[in-house]
Amino acid sequence: MSAVVDLNSDLGEGFGRWTLGDDEAMLDLVTSANVACGFHAGDPSILRRVCARAAERGVAVGAQVGYRDLAGFGRRHIDVDPAELVNEVIYQIGALDGIARVEGSRVIYVKPHGALYNDAASNQATARAVAEAIALYDRSLPLVGLAGSELLVAAEAAGLEAVAEAFADRAYTAEGLLASRREDGAVLHDPVAIAARCVRLVTDGTIDAIDGSSVPVAARSICVHGDTEGAVAIAAAVRRALEGAGITIQAFTAPPPPSSTASGSTGA
Amino acid sequence: MSAVVDLNSDLGEGFGRWTLGDDEAMLDLVTSANVACGFHAGDPSILRRVCARAAERGVAVGAQVGYRDLAGFGRRHIDVDPAELVNEVIYQIGALDGIARVEGSRVIYVKPHGALYNDAASNQATARAVAEAIALYDRSLPLVGLAGSELLVAAEAAGLEAVAEAFADRAYTAEGLLASRREDGAVLHDPVAIAARCVRLVTDGTIDAIDGSSVPVAARSICVHGDTEGAVAIAAAVRRALEGAGITIQAFTAPPPPSSTASGSTGA
Amino acid sequence: MSAVVDLNSDLGEGFGRWTLGDDEAMLDLVTSANVACGFHAGDPSILRRVCARAAERGVAVGAQVGYRDLAGFGRRHIDVDPAELVNEVIYQIGALDGIARVEGSRVIYVKPHGALYNDAASNQATARAVAEAIALYDRSLPLVGLAGSELLVAAEAAGLEAVAEAFADRAYTAEGLLASRREDGAVLHDPVAIAARCVRLVTDGTIDAIDGSSVPVAARSICVHGDTEGAVAIAAAVRRALEGAGITIQAFTAPPPPSSTASGSTGA
Amino acid sequence: MSAVVDLNSDLGEGFGRWTLGDDEAMLDLVTSANVACGFHAGDPSILRRVCARAAERGVAVGAQVGYRDLAGFGRRHIDVDPAELVNEVIYQIGALDGIARVEGSRVIYVKPHGALYNDAASNQATARAVAEAIALYDRSLPLVGLAGSELLVAAEAAGLEAVAEAFADRAYTAEGLLASRREDGAVLHDPVAIAARCVRLVTDGTIDAIDGSSVPVAARSICVHGDTEGAVAIAAAVRRALEGAGITIQAFTAPPPPSSTASGSTGA
Repeated sequence: MSAVVDLNSDLGEGFGRWTLGDDEAMLDLVTSANVACGFHAGDPSILRRVCARAAERGVAVGAQVGYRDLAGFGRRHIDVDPAELVNEVIYQIGALDGIARVEGSRVIYVKPHGALYNDAASNQATARAVAEAIALYDRSLPLVGLAGSELLVAAEAAGLEAVAEAFADRAYTAEGLLASRREDGAVLHDPVAIAARCVRLVTDGTIDAIDGSSVPVAARSICVHGDTEGAVAIAAAVRRALEGAGITIQAFTAPPPPSSTASGSTGA
Repeated sequence: MSAVVDLNSDLGEGFGRWTLGDDEAMLDLVTSANVACGFHAGDPSILRRVCARAAERGVAVGAQVGYRDLAGFGRRHIDVDPAELVNEVIYQIGALDGIARVEGSRVIYVKPHGALYNDAASNQATARAVAEAIALYDRSLPLVGLAGSELLVAAEAAGLEAVAEAFADRAYTAEGLLASRREDGAVLHDPVAIAARCVRLVTDGTIDAIDGSSVPVAARSICVHGDTEGAVAIAAAVRRALEGAGITIQAFTAPPPPSSTASGSTGA
Repeated sequence: MSAVVDLNSDLGEGFGRWTLGDDEAMLDLVTSANVACGFHAGDPSILRRVCARAAERGVAVGAQVGYRDLAGFGRRHIDVDPAELVNEVIYQIGALDGIARVEGSRVIYVKPHGALYNDAASNQATARAVAEAIALYDRSLPLVGLAGSELLVAAEAAGLEAVAEAFADRAYTAEGLLASRREDGAVLHDPVAIAARCVRLVTDGTIDAIDGSSVPVAARSICVHGDTEGAVAIAAAVRRALEGAGITIQAFTAPPPPSSTASGSTGA
Repeated sequence: MSAVVDLNSDLGEGFGRWTLGDDEAMLDLVTSANVACGFHAGDPSILRRVCARAAERGVAVGAQVGYRDLAGFGRRHIDVDPAELVNEVIYQIGALDGIARVEGSRVIYVKPHGALYNDAASNQATARAVAEAIALYDRSLPLVGLAGSELLVAAEAAGLEAVAEAFADRAYTAEGLLASRREDGAVLHDPVAIAARCVRLVTDGTIDAIDGSSVPVAARSICVHGDTEGAVAIAAAVRRALEGAGITIQAFTAPPPPSSTASGSTGA
């Protein structure tokens, strides 16, 4: 039996005149596209372009929901009331889903962005708000989060499919958590080393921790970045190494088949 | 055979701490709610509350799409590229539709707001962009616009149902167009006179023009405002007068039936 | 020797189409106007109108700086990097000061708003960022904060004049801090009782705590609210009671004299 | 007598996570920096960094005021009420001036951006609103605009110094106006040709029009762009060619002298 893993990346994160990353290059490498929804980045025209390209390549589209914070790119914790957060997440999913449908695709999973991702990893109220929003919108949408996080606990409690992911270029603690970015060596830069970690993660279910120990990490998806030239090269190296090891790279949930009837959406 | 007309009003137009109008009162008077979508007004929690109340009362929910302009409340013309406008309209419809679904409702029509409404009344490119967005999102959604406008021409050209509306409190020219707000007498304030106009509009298909002549206006819906205390009183007078004249007040398109699968949530 | 106190209030907190509170009424009651600077509320035309009216009445203008959060009205903690916060505060002061100068006035003090006020009351890094911004912009501007707060400590450390204020309508703990809004009785509503507290605060330097004890509170300014009809009535009652007790109500810092070089314009 | 010209460029046009152009490189080439003010681009930390670097190099800081339109980068006409536009321009100048002062510099001129620049070139009401704002804020600030534009007419009528500029990389019509970007050859790309045009503009006061004729253009400043790698190379070629022709490159208005009372801070 061959091993399988999904590669996901954050895309559509420009805004108006401003661009970020190489969406085209990344769409040739990943199987799942976490598309910004307009709150931390992403205007409707960028979203539509990414959804169109993703649909052409059979890449799954996920809603990368975030805090309403263009100035902070969604990377700053905002103390949003959980009841309001539920509604903000529904709004974002619906907006991107509307765009994706027009391109013959659909939002088929959700992954929070930036500070919302981090908050939902450790804060129960935040995690539950995100999960509740998805359950209200469409209970069939999987929720992607950090392996071992409160977000995945909340997903399962809400009856959602919980998809654990790992980060290709981040060091882990001996406990299997992400090492703080402030620690030396928290972010890896060597494509060869990163690619080797990813292969071992998929084949052995382990990752080398920052203290040299080996820790178990169960992940169905690996997050790769594409916002710098070097990042795209790393993503490409990861993909090559996984394929070279006989690992099948495919989305954890199937994108809708190419449809000639694109617009005739029938609702959620 | 009894005459029938729809009453529509702009709702959900607060934002965060700021409120506008009396949505609750208006939802007891109208049959169609033009709900703001977040670009000119309306945050996700306001949208959800209005959608929940509309669903409870069987009021139809329409997407009141506008220019991205919170500071100008969508009342200022913005020279948006038509191709981008298409995407902005899709985004807004999808966002509100997501919220409405969660409350067991659906967006079942679209009506542009403010400057977008006015631009689409006379500018072909704008009108076509709005119609194209709707046709791409869901060809079954009617488009509401000013009787005789380019917007309704574009709707029909795009294969959409075009719903003509009239304004209860606005004076008309002898050509059947809205008199400019800058003219004396362009906005009516007497509830009795306004109500009588509405009855005649529905029963005779005519409206008294500002020059004293009588002009034909074919409208399936009448727009009433609710953003001041006086406005709510006018809307109530209109409804009473229509009912007193034996006119049936009902949405031009049926809202979805109350659904047991809806979340039943009451919003934030 | 007669007692003296300043009355301050948050003004200019509408945005575009949305209004909040009765700025005109409050400008007849207070001696210091905390004018919003556009980040949590306040567009340039609102700011100019308030500055013009304040200048006419000799009311001091202060910059009510806040987090960049129109959707949350600046009431939500945002985890802004302190170095960026310094710059955001400078930007806001400069913007309002530009408007005020055009009306022959000046920003002559600073008071943070909402979550920034609360964060700066207890968080040293936030307090220091606010104080640093003011010191960089103009070291002669006093900083208004909660009596006993970190903000006032930081103000003095930065060489600024620290002005302690008390809240007319908020209950205090036995330690002299504000009781949490979540506690029963944390917000007072009776104009007579509130006015009496204010008189005692100025004449005795004490306030009744929520547990019935009497605690010392040294405050040179009292904050009154004006965002509801009831709030204006309370502010008026406070003013009458203070005047009735022979207390002089005047700004803690003098507004600039009416200037013949000012534009004399009354804004948009 | 040696010829003199100013080189100006749009800087500080990133926002939060998004960068645009190479401000550092351009600050070594130009004598006047049109710094974004936050409405179309530019957050307070970016503004402060650019002001600090400009102050270090003795580059003049101008306020690049624009429409409130981050999504459209200020490039879309917005039908702003002129009275509100006055206030929006004052707000932006004040905000940037506050930041500049902290770095020992000052806003010493104003140049509108994008659609506001174009609107003010031909629309009297817009031109007058911009000029009025500057006259109210500080009558000593020059206003930079297109040679022959309504903006410069309005500047003079308001008692401001009007500074005409030309564009290094744009084709001109035989009437001395900018050729529309939609025409073939409207934007020039060859550094050598562009540099030669600039030399002739300064030495002869003429520019080759798109139809081959030679038209007189009186300009005290030349605008060069820096938002692409190629643009920086063009700007460098222009500077070298001007210097090679013995032309003195200096700001049309002198930046404030380095001040020992400035904060000396280097920004966030």
